[in-house]
Amino acid sequence: MSWEINGSPVSILSVSYLTIHFGAQNFIPSSGIGSRALVWFGLTAPVLRVRIFRMEKMQRGGLYSALRRCGFLANLGDEDIALLIPSARRVQYQKNVVVFREGDPCHGFYVVEDGAVKLYKESTEGKEQILHVAVPGDCFGEAALFLSTGYPASAATIKDSSLVLLKRDEFLNALRNNPKIALALIGSMAIWAQRLVALIENLALKDSGQRLAAYLLSRCSSSCGKAVVELEITKQVLAAHLGIAGETLSRLLARFEASGLVQLSGRKIRLLAPERLRSVAAGSSSAEELHV
Amino acid sequence: MSWEINGSPVSILSVSYLTIHFGAQNFIPSSGIGSRALVWFGLTAPVLRVRIFRMEKMQRGGLYSALRRCGFLANLGDEDIALLIPSARRVQYQKNVVVFREGDPCHGFYVVEDGAVKLYKESTEGKEQILHVAVPGDCFGEAALFLSTGYPASAATIKDSSLVLLKRDEFLNALRNNPKIALALIGSMAIWAQRLVALIENLALKDSGQRLAAYLLSRCSSSCGKAVVELEITKQVLAAHLGIAGETLSRLLARFEASGLVQLSGRKIRLLAPERLRSVAAGSSSAEELHV
Repeated sequence: MSWEINGSPVSILSVSYLTIHFGAQNFIPSSGIGSRALVWFGLTAPVLRVRIFRMEKMQRGGLYSALRRCGFLANLGDEDIALLIPSARRVQYQKNVVVFREGDPCHGFYVVEDGAVKLYKESTEGKEQILHVAVPGDCFGEAALFLSTGYPASAATIKDSSLVLLKRDEFLNALRNNPKIALALIGSMAIWAQRLVALIENLALKDSGQRLAAYLLSRCSSSCGKAVVELEITKQVLAAHLGIAGETLSRLLARFEASGLVQLSGRKIRLLAPERLRSVAAGSSSAEELHV
Repeated sequence: MSWEINGSPVSILSVSYLTIHFGAQNFIPSSGIGSRALVWFGLTAPVLRVRIFRMEKMQRGGLYSALRRCGFLANLGDEDIALLIPSARRVQYQKNVVVFREGDPCHGFYVVEDGAVKLYKESTEGKEQILHVAVPGDCFGEAALFLSTGYPASAATIKDSSLVLLKRDEFLNALRNNPKIALALIGSMAIWAQRLVALIENLALKDSGQRLAAYLLSRCSSSCGKAVVELEITKQVLAAHLGIAGETLSRLLARFEASGLVQLSGRKIRLLAPERLRSVAAGSSSAEELHV
């Protein structure tokens, strides 16, 4: 894991030293800086102290803007978000790394700063059902803060990802002292519940064509003026999310394109006829009627 | 709809009069009591005022104990629950009545005092998937308070039911002023999310035998010392909840009994071998291996 400082004026050597000796998350070590460090970098103690102070400020500033971009904190004021900084810590993962497993004790929840993380359930035979793919601005794992049974699902990166971990005890403390944070979290959990309900509807009540149409429309809400869905995930991951086979997904996408519903271009899917897609998703027009 | 006062010392006539003329939820009308009411009951104004005051007190007391029994408010103090009384209103429904439909604007959420309510999604062809059956102490519809899209699912009674409606605006007001209520609600929503995740796992990753075993075990947690599950719902409703056909459920229950996993007696199901049921639910022992 590497800890990144954007545009840092501090030399790489001193960053490495501090990272190795004092931990990436604690740039002002309580025990003070030993004379060996000063000799290493050829610095006087006051100069090193100023550099450390600057680095801490930058780290806090970086965390601040990461939290600021997070969807569920959008309506909070600057001072409310500042309250969360002591509980926040940036963590970076390469692609295909497990962040936590179902049942693991909850140490906090995560905000996606960059990359993508799948939340999933796995059967004993290794079959996987993706609950959601969290992209930048999304958070995940927050329900586990309030459950004695640990994380209710597993999480793994599907891209190299930069996450902000909001540590459990510190976050709960901020929550207890600030009703605005509590309200923001409730809003986020309501959206999570709504997503899960939509997935249940998809799995139990919709056929694969309806599922795909509903997914494409859900990814292209009012904020998506151009009606272009850009898949952050591979088609294999999308198929697992929709609970259909990979070949079925490919066949459906080709049929949707042939019937003029969408236009495919790599990972971009342009919705050409959202109204017809809506009637496919609702089941009021079957794929056959639409010559899909 | 009838409004009930337990052990009321106030005459049925005066209750009916007040119910009809001033609404069941507002026993002290702002406009005062007209002289016609006094003539009807042969009462003087001060006597009627005392009776109205007593009725209001009883209604509040009834609502208080209904909220006190509600799971998500269990850790709140008396004064916190008292804050919710102004937002609370008791409503009664007969069996098979729709409480709200998916997409209806949210006017509040409900606590089940008595009876049972199914939360469900319905396809355009009328196929139904039950998300959860709320029983006394459960609440439902709370996520919709924080969604602009209305209730994410429909709710209908499956028994004659007495519910407490916590009205949206008044409840949100209490929430903003009391972080303890916010925390309690977050806890309730976390459990709701966990239930939905478990249902997704059932639908996507478990066969019908695994689903039934998992359901029976989930109904028989640590609080259920005797290992007896008493179904509040019909077998038909249970089958819809598990997403399996009614005949499949009957066949599975008979097989579970024949193999010594459970003992059936009307709506009571005694779990004879919870450990073996657990391995069926986990998929580590298939129904065939267990001679189920």
